[in-house]
Amino acid sequence: MLVNGECREHIEISDRGFQYGDGLFETIAVSNGQPVFFDRHIDRLEAGCRRLFIPFPGTELLTFEAKKLCQHSNKAVLKLILTRGSGGRGYRQPEVIQTTRVLSLHPFPSFPCSRLGIFASIYEEQGIVVRFCDTRLGLNPVLAGIKHLNRLEQILARAEWSDPDIQEGIMLDMNEHVIEGTMTNLFYVKNNTLYTSSITLTGVAGIMRGIIMVMASDHGLSAIEHTFTKDELLTADEVFVCNSIVGIWPIKQIAAKCFSVGVRTRQLQAWLIQFINEANNRGL
Amino acid sequence: MLVNGECREHIEISDRGFQYGDGLFETIAVSNGQPVFFDRHIDRLEAGCRRLFIPFPGTELLTFEAKKLCQHSNKAVLKLILTRGSGGRGYRQPEVIQTTRVLSLHPFPSFPCSRLGIFASIYEEQGIVVRFCDTRLGLNPVLAGIKHLNRLEQILARAEWSDPDIQEGIMLDMNEHVIEGTMTNLFYVKNNTLYTSSITLTGVAGIMRGIIMVMASDHGLSAIEHTFTKDELLTADEVFVCNSIVGIWPIKQIAAKCFSVGVRTRQLQAWLIQFINEANNRGL
Repeated sequence: MLVNGECREHIEISDRGFQYGDGLFETIAVSNGQPVFFDRHIDRLEAGCRRLFIPFPGTELLTFEAKKLCQHSNKAVLKLILTRGSGGRGYRQPEVIQTTRVLSLHPFPSFPCSRLGIFASIYEEQGIVVRFCDTRLGLNPVLAGIKHLNRLEQILARAEWSDPDIQEGIMLDMNEHVIEGTMTNLFYVKNNTLYTSSITLTGVAGIMRGIIMVMASDHGLSAIEHTFTKDELLTADEVFVCNSIVGIWPIKQIAAKCFSVGVRTRQLQAWLIQFINEANNRGL
Repeated sequence: MLVNGECREHIEISDRGFQYGDGLFETIAVSNGQPVFFDRHIDRLEAGCRRLFIPFPGTELLTFEAKKLCQHSNKAVLKLILTRGSGGRGYRQPEVIQTTRVLSLHPFPSFPCSRLGIFASIYEEQGIVVRFCDTRLGLNPVLAGIKHLNRLEQILARAEWSDPDIQEGIMLDMNEHVIEGTMTNLFYVKNNTLYTSSITLTGVAGIMRGIIMVMASDHGLSAIEHTFTKDELLTADEVFVCNSIVGIWPIKQIAAKCFSVGVRTRQLQAWLIQFINEANNRGL
């Protein structure tokens, strides 16, 4: 782990990340010593800093530290946390903010799999089973989209089930609109159009979500952000979830309703492999 | 500072309090070596643990550690943080939770004041000036009332102003209902009845708020929790904010509207001194 450039496993108790969840994070796949889609993660981090008024430590410094930490890892997860540092009185931020940066490397989650590739897993191949969570996402445009450190809603939603045959839980917001998985974004396909939830009131603007929107546009597939209910979701032709670590996981079952892994989902998975190779070639 | 009973100023980076804001806290006034209303703070902490499924470390242990830390302090602030400890994969909580407990002692905020007493200050005497914040509180009954570590909304609201002549900001929720101050609960008096915001959808169930409700009931003053707007608030006869550190602060001005410090507010301040003395005599 690297804390402000030093090898440490501890953080000051006074750090506002610990005191108030006053910060941001990124969870990044590492493949062959390289953080995957690092430029996109850094851009989101910088955008999050702007929205929370946390000084951004700079792309160069974060890139240097990330590469240093990842260089000997074949496959891992890099977690990057930025906080507003220590100080200030109560909620009031300090006059001078010394952003804390924490980079840590973790084992890649071990999903059974039959082929090679950063996102290869039995779930990517065969699809997953998901449930609807009871815990609702609160609504707040000030925080919507940001991958911030206030994650109690996701923790409570994830605590709702322990059945290992259920891989993800879908979360609705307070208006009963479908938003995302506890750790993923959600898409569905209907009549050859791709849909995902609008995240202006709640939810996380996932990096993989953004990549899927770009890939769809590049390949002439209509992709629409909108607001939809459980019932609308259950009439979809195909459904999948995505994030930076698992890639694209088709959903084969939501509660009692079964879905086939469809042609559009398979196309997006194939485009994603292409997209990664192109990014690798550009050194991102 | 005491971390799980040991003198330390650091916490593991893997602690879920730092990773996700996965925990709770209490801010407690310390007077003459004693944490004030400690029983109430401990009860709220235990209730919060129940709602977040965090094992409660026990009243005896927390009391022992708090008294040890406070014994030589004449006037201070004790902060008590409990988190879900380290471990688990992502948002999923660990199979066995080892609750982290952090107790820290801080200087009491130095407000100018002309008399003695734990809550004595120029603001308690003369009242404060407040503003309405633009940052809205998100709505979520799952987290409403709990003093948890997800505090970005309060931080963004407190960052809206730096004018030292404004002592507090009033926060509305997404439905434009008045809820509380950034660090206080809010009450108003109208036609000899006391009103405070309902906190079933958002807000913190403050200890001082609870004490004020009890005192009102003990003295035959009607006290009602309900839902109200900015406009309703501005027609009040008296308005005040409260918390465990400042006691009761009358509001003398909200935005452009002035208020006099009224007889009911003065009564509650007097009852509070009595209430503390009685609690002290009972050793709480």
